[in-house]
Amino acid sequence: MGHTIADKKKLLARVRRIKGQVEAIERALEGEAGCEPVMHLIAAARGAMAGLMAEVVEDHVRTHLVDAEIYPKALNSDAIEQLLDVVRSYLK
Amino acid sequence: MGHTIADKKKLLARVRRIKGQVEAIERALEGEAGCEPVMHLIAAARGAMAGLMAEVVEDHVRTHLVDAEIYPKALNSDAIEQLLDVVRSYLK
Amino acid sequence: MGHTIADKKKLLARVRRIKGQVEAIERALEGEAGCEPVMHLIAAARGAMAGLMAEVVEDHVRTHLVDAEIYPKALNSDAIEQLLDVVRSYLK
Amino acid sequence: MGHTIADKKKLLARVRRIKGQVEAIERALEGEAGCEPVMHLIAAARGAMAGLMAEVVEDHVRTHLVDAEIYPKALNSDAIEQLLDVVRSYLK
Repeated sequence: MGHTIADKKKLLARVRRIKGQVEAIERALEGEAGCEPVMHLIAAARGAMAGLMAEVVEDHVRTHLVDAEIYPKALNSDAIEQLLDVVRSYLK
Repeated sequence: MGHTIADKKKLLARVRRIKGQVEAIERALEGEAGCEPVMHLIAAARGAMAGLMAEVVEDHVRTHLVDAEIYPKALNSDAIEQLLDVVRSYLK
Repeated sequence: MGHTIADKKKLLARVRRIKGQVEAIERALEGEAGCEPVMHLIAAARGAMAGLMAEVVEDHVRTHLVDAEIYPKALNSDAIEQLLDVVRSYLK
Repeated sequence: MGHTIADKKKLLARVRRIKGQVEAIERALEGEAGCEPVMHLIAAARGAMAGLMAEVVEDHVRTHLVDAEIYPKALNSDAIEQLLDVVRSYLK
């Protein structure tokens, strides 16, 4: 993806947190938890997954739509922010 | 938006269809329809609204992220298609 | 639907507000508004549609799953609230 | 939750599959995969999570809204199916 290490670290930290959330759902089911806590755990994991997707989409938009080495000024930054606003509002 | 007339016509046709769908919900409520048809009408109108949003986002991505008159070759078309795939999968 | 008049009035008021929002999208497109305001108008109308669906689903759950005249105490109100919490969190 | 063992097994199988999908996202990020496969993996995991939620909600609706031992005939099965149709259409 050509992400900087910082980005990759941040994304990996998000994914590992989601894995922990999925394991919590697994333990809740194994422990015969009621529907309510299970539904809350799933809703939280789903929100975290949406946040991860929003971040990957944002990286994709900022770094891959245009090759910044060849066209360093081609991306219209206002238009990018408007697009990311919409993406984030749907990825909640 | 700088859309071609064709695009604007297509978007307007979509919006007018949605207005018709909202009016159908209104009539169903006025006519004391049951919950089931009302829920179906709302689900259909919501799907049409998502389709409209997907189309406007697509126009935005294709025409506004980069000024094609100045940078006609800057947009990476594969990366654009990957982005629009994700947008469409969330706008369903 | 067997709604009380109060409910029906509230739902109709919501639907009419949505119709106004759809007409605002139509006017924005006719007036050659930019993508950004159009995307915001669509996002707002979609939110209002989701709110309408949440309200109809809530009515449906509260009034149709069980015939309250025959089984006035059958619905478990905690379980209903847990269900509606999930429904509302997805209908945002 | 009072699920039968069969249900619990099915739900656990779903959760474990999702854990595998999240681990695949982790490996893809560690292996410097491109955005496109990562976005597809996330979209697939999100779909699986939505399917899990739909199933838990369905169990909740069928087994907890009404105590079937006390009121075995209270739930209106048509109304339940209509509700679950809406839930499933939003949990996709």
